[in-house]
Amino acid sequence: MKIERYEQNPLITPADVKPYHDGFEVIGAFNAGIAEYNGEVLMLLRVAERPVSPDPNIVLAPVYNVDHGGLDLIEIRKDDDRYDLSDPRVIVRKENAPAFEYLTSLSYLRIARSRDGHTFQVDEQPLVYPSQSLEIFGIEDPRITQIGDTYYIYFSAVSPVGIGESLVSTKDFRNITHHGMIFGPDNKDVLIFPEKIGGKYYALHRPTTKSCGRPEIWLAESDNLLYWGNHKHLLGLRPGNWDGGRIGGGAVPIKTERGWLELYHGATKDHRYCMGAVLLDLNDPSKVIARSDRPIMEPEADYERQGFFGEVVFSCGALVRGDTVAMYYGVSDTSMACAELSLQEILDSLQPV
Amino acid sequence: MKIERYEQNPLITPADVKPYHDGFEVIGAFNAGIAEYNGEVLMLLRVAERPVSPDPNIVLAPVYNVDHGGLDLIEIRKDDDRYDLSDPRVIVRKENAPAFEYLTSLSYLRIARSRDGHTFQVDEQPLVYPSQSLEIFGIEDPRITQIGDTYYIYFSAVSPVGIGESLVSTKDFRNITHHGMIFGPDNKDVLIFPEKIGGKYYALHRPTTKSCGRPEIWLAESDNLLYWGNHKHLLGLRPGNWDGGRIGGGAVPIKTERGWLELYHGATKDHRYCMGAVLLDLNDPSKVIARSDRPIMEPEADYERQGFFGEVVFSCGALVRGDTVAMYYGVSDTSMACAELSLQEILDSLQPV
Repeated sequence: MKIERYEQNPLITPADVKPYHDGFEVIGAFNAGIAEYNGEVLMLLRVAERPVSPDPNIVLAPVYNVDHGGLDLIEIRKDDDRYDLSDPRVIVRKENAPAFEYLTSLSYLRIARSRDGHTFQVDEQPLVYPSQSLEIFGIEDPRITQIGDTYYIYFSAVSPVGIGESLVSTKDFRNITHHGMIFGPDNKDVLIFPEKIGGKYYALHRPTTKSCGRPEIWLAESDNLLYWGNHKHLLGLRPGNWDGGRIGGGAVPIKTERGWLELYHGATKDHRYCMGAVLLDLNDPSKVIARSDRPIMEPEADYERQGFFGEVVFSCGALVRGDTVAMYYGVSDTSMACAELSLQEILDSLQPV
Repeated sequence: MKIERYEQNPLITPADVKPYHDGFEVIGAFNAGIAEYNGEVLMLLRVAERPVSPDPNIVLAPVYNVDHGGLDLIEIRKDDDRYDLSDPRVIVRKENAPAFEYLTSLSYLRIARSRDGHTFQVDEQPLVYPSQSLEIFGIEDPRITQIGDTYYIYFSAVSPVGIGESLVSTKDFRNITHHGMIFGPDNKDVLIFPEKIGGKYYALHRPTTKSCGRPEIWLAESDNLLYWGNHKHLLGLRPGNWDGGRIGGGAVPIKTERGWLELYHGATKDHRYCMGAVLLDLNDPSKVIARSDRPIMEPEADYERQGFFGEVVFSCGALVRGDTVAMYYGVSDTSMACAELSLQEILDSLQPV
């Protein structure tokens, strides 16, 4: 697979983003949803900000307070035996492990704009910021599906009651309409198809189950984008393979003559995240036609291997022009990058299922 | 709280149910959905059947096979160190604990009929039996909501990819229409309200989350009963209390002048299941008005304390006539019972929230 990484990579790093919160540092500007609007390429960044702790023995956890509209900072002492702080992203109360009690950063969504798709400037203000009880730990990993002149933006909404997927919409990337949580907890990695198929909307989603089952990709249908049902299990893990630990949808499904092409992420049990592809039937996306035996992209560049959480390439959006797929992707839970691949080469690389 | 247990309790026990599968024993006839149809009270039993193992050193796990329409029996040796068999309901592969690998019984739905609500006769055949890939470990804990002349029957669909909630409907308790999975995994204890409120259908549901959060009650809305959205967290645990370990909806919400009355189950961390009640706003069921400080019913009778999984009262349906609530309930994951309570007494016992 020929992969042309942009020479400007990483396109945006935390150093390019001014903190929105006083006393915070930006530790991530990554996993951006992608859209084209008004002659610009927009990366809707997930910006993660971490409160700077005045005491090296204390970890701070930011929590949005619905009542006063600001952030509360929870203090956890590093020598408090009740907590496991080994994963820098989360604070785990040992008796509830592996569930987390708090996150160490707060994520929200902020636009980076570009005329050429290579050089970006970050907006001063967030576009979507936590505003409700289901978002008090932050909002993460947006995707954007354009249908007509409306952009549907959906993201993981994180709170003490679980992680679900919530939806907002906009026509101008200024005024936002909230539509509530469309997939209840635990769910992530929703991808809404860009048009109706046989009279229905479809979405990929990724439940995280506790009773049994694994982090795998499901399909749901809708007639209004707000209410979803007829859930079906679509794509499973391949134990021992590059996508043997967890998988989830990545970019908005791409319509091709051969079927719906989904660029998805797969991770090993050791949390090495690669990108692969799966082809779904054009008229019935519950039918899997073909799938990547090997990743179409692996973490290889330095910026993909090192960072806040290394060995990660994680795409939430791509732009297709002719045979060129410009796949934007988060690297190491830290920054944004882009690489161009050939649509035809991706399709030709897939193995029939 | 005055509770009048039926003198016929338990109304149905496993001994009253002839196994549907050759070589199986019925170990549970419990957690029945309740309906009135054609002059009869119907208990739609969850019947659990367990394959009788020919070898005391082997546990058998029944799995529905979609291809040939019969059951496969998986054999697990009791001395296989990879498995934890301490919970008689499940087979846990230790490396995946607490998630289960198989169930030790297969559940399906079967009608018990009564003219007087006290004395029941069990149908020879199942009404709803596993038939699809999302049901191969069985279907469990049905509830029935009547809307007009249609009975909506929904239940936990259990398979290796998780536990979700699926919907079928019938007008005659003979012909069944399948509507697919309405709440993706992990989800249980769905209760569809019996009429639209402000132009929308509503349902309680109970996600089981892994990332964070606890087994608590959520609310969703719909315009067609098939697709659901606008998920909201409704009711939480009360740590240390009778409902401090897990909660879930029980009977179909009862419309009263004071609000929607939901009889729900709550369990301690030690798995002692009681029934309590919560009152929701008549025009906006996302508003909790009042709630039981103490259970309205606890496991006290012998048949409620002893059985396959003891110390459990678990209602999936009730009939209301005037001030009398006939609450049917499963006992000890084994049998069915019924008790009458006063609607007024339940309402008067609730504490404002």
